[in-house]
Amino acid sequence: MAASNAAVLPVAGLRLAAVSAGIKTPGRLDLVLLELAEGSSVAATFTRNAFCAAPVQVARDHLRSTAPRYFLVNTGNANAGTGEAGRVDALACCRALAETAAVAVESVLPFSTGVIGEPLPVSAITDALPAALAELADDQWPAAAEGIMTTDTRPKVASRQFELDGVTITLTGMAKGAGMIKPNMATMLGFLATDAAVAPGLLQHLWSDVVEHSFNRVTVDGDTSTNDAAMLVATGAAAHPEIADPADPRLPVLREALQSLALELAQALVRDGEGASKFVTVEVAQAASEAEALEVAYTIAHSPLVKTALFASDPNWGRLLAAIGRAEVADLDVDRVELRINGVLIAEAGGRAAGYTEQQGAAAMAPAEIHIQVLLQRGEESATVWTSDLSYDYVRINAEYRT
Amino acid sequence: MAASNAAVLPVAGLRLAAVSAGIKTPGRLDLVLLELAEGSSVAATFTRNAFCAAPVQVARDHLRSTAPRYFLVNTGNANAGTGEAGRVDALACCRALAETAAVAVESVLPFSTGVIGEPLPVSAITDALPAALAELADDQWPAAAEGIMTTDTRPKVASRQFELDGVTITLTGMAKGAGMIKPNMATMLGFLATDAAVAPGLLQHLWSDVVEHSFNRVTVDGDTSTNDAAMLVATGAAAHPEIADPADPRLPVLREALQSLALELAQALVRDGEGASKFVTVEVAQAASEAEALEVAYTIAHSPLVKTALFASDPNWGRLLAAIGRAEVADLDVDRVELRINGVLIAEAGGRAAGYTEQQGAAAMAPAEIHIQVLLQRGEESATVWTSDLSYDYVRINAEYRT
Repeated sequence: MAASNAAVLPVAGLRLAAVSAGIKTPGRLDLVLLELAEGSSVAATFTRNAFCAAPVQVARDHLRSTAPRYFLVNTGNANAGTGEAGRVDALACCRALAETAAVAVESVLPFSTGVIGEPLPVSAITDALPAALAELADDQWPAAAEGIMTTDTRPKVASRQFELDGVTITLTGMAKGAGMIKPNMATMLGFLATDAAVAPGLLQHLWSDVVEHSFNRVTVDGDTSTNDAAMLVATGAAAHPEIADPADPRLPVLREALQSLALELAQALVRDGEGASKFVTVEVAQAASEAEALEVAYTIAHSPLVKTALFASDPNWGRLLAAIGRAEVADLDVDRVELRINGVLIAEAGGRAAGYTEQQGAAAMAPAEIHIQVLLQRGEESATVWTSDLSYDYVRINAEYRT
Repeated sequence: MAASNAAVLPVAGLRLAAVSAGIKTPGRLDLVLLELAEGSSVAATFTRNAFCAAPVQVARDHLRSTAPRYFLVNTGNANAGTGEAGRVDALACCRALAETAAVAVESVLPFSTGVIGEPLPVSAITDALPAALAELADDQWPAAAEGIMTTDTRPKVASRQFELDGVTITLTGMAKGAGMIKPNMATMLGFLATDAAVAPGLLQHLWSDVVEHSFNRVTVDGDTSTNDAAMLVATGAAAHPEIADPADPRLPVLREALQSLALELAQALVRDGEGASKFVTVEVAQAASEAEALEVAYTIAHSPLVKTALFASDPNWGRLLAAIGRAEVADLDVDRVELRINGVLIAEAGGRAAGYTEQQGAAAMAPAEIHIQVLLQRGEESATVWTSDLSYDYVRINAEYRT
């Protein structure tokens, strides 16, 4: 039902603008505004990092008190590690926008990404707000996707169009950053919007589940940012009765489109990871639970030794088995584990697969897209995560990076 | 009480030999034999990796049935990922030694380190056993420490001498490998021996606790090997009444010496880690429990972003705070966290410390020995782990390494 569209489609009820506020680099698009039609439903997921940045704290507070009307996003400064002064600064930006746009301050949610520990240049941001408000338009997704970039090498924006009971529904989203590849710069931000009408509680339930299986399933180095946020807006501008019942048959159709788009954007973050030379799918199947499948998948995806082997296109099944073996899975019978790389059976029965040759392994590891499949033969649950390799460039970028 | 000695001291009741069996590299010392006096107590800790190698499985079995008389250690081949054939091969080596030495096969424990997935060259090993038995002597610790090396750049062996109620006690130990720096080659093995007389159950209790606070507190990349083992022998050759009561006042004295030596050897593994340019102590104090202190310490020690910053001598407090924040600690109040690097207060109250300058931070990060101290201000528990940085060489070594 959900089909990919090359075109980026406007979402009725949502307008965007991207302007240059000169926050860090003069002339660069660094301030992005999203305006939500009145009555929009909003769902949010934020970083689980205990050190969450000031804008995350303010956004959480504001969400508790009223329905959002504006998302105010700046790059160049994360307003993180800034303590109480950071919260005051974030609030000052919200208040300036609220006054100009004549809405309640709590209906503005702030998002920041950029350097940590520097004071937010509040007046640069507030000075640029009139221009941002003036430029709001529903076709500004591409500019906005560029405006939220930090060290991303390309904007990440895409759309889906599908039908719910004969009504055409549009879903468009954008994202930036790749986990903590460059932690002072690369917060993960995602903003998706649809013109479908969905009750807020149901939308949050749906979004939490989709994020768990998309943005939360990509990992570059296991670090999470202090500023990560993923937002979903349902403007309700489409002419159809609101989806409010969890048993509504339209819900699975919407869910599939959402999941498809969120996953495309999340995977684009991994593909754009600096220093990444491989795009790696780690699938763990036949597990007793999804939790243990995830535990094995993440242990593989975060193993520096597996990741350096991937960089070297080395079918190092010893490192893969060792990673599987140290995952926290009770009573794992290693003699039942099967390991395939791009379809080639590499290991089984506790060791190298019978008939496997290094030549086969080298051929399997050569492509830029690697599919690692682990069968545990313990049950019927599975989980997949996506990651990249560990390259010289990863070390170079992260060792050399200073603002 | 425990004093470090530059000299490596023989331990009465324990003889060693190191010979060349030509397992992988002709002429290289690659087979090490330890002979334990009859009546010795033995304590063991093995890898927690579910994919434990054949020798680990055999050693565990043998320990259950009788007191060990010989440790047979080979390098050049890990006998891991070899399935049932690997167990048969390990047993064959034990049996050959048992027959020649006229002991029960179960009193021989095998240990292997080297390449994974290759069949163990059993006859090369058994052919070298007579020479090994003939060369057994109590002063062969240095040769044995060299014989168990794989990619280690230097042998790791040291002694302690101390008194228990007026009786001079000797403690000597050796270790090899650094976690999974080179996972196909670098199993962690540790062998310590003392002439003290300690009841087996008490010795195991003591050893498990010491290993938990030494070998289990060093980490290079979070990976654990399929072959890790740490053994403690108490020969009882010293002329003193056996320590059998947990309340024996001699026990803390023995424990301190053991802890000191085990930690020295464990830290030597980190210092010898290939690609390591920094030796990093991560101390987390004022935690509500030792478990949460360890969780924070390991999250810091395993963060690739922290490790690349260490490589770059970059006082990147944002990465450190982010690592602390994503540790799984319930209700962490980040505004109470204090972070020091080599004594310099870097961060407090959720952000950069007042008065902290980048110059101070750069000076603090310049030395090769870095002490990261985190105060959580939640309680009185603490934990310390030791690790290294993440360098170009780490990637080079682990990407280029193939047998």
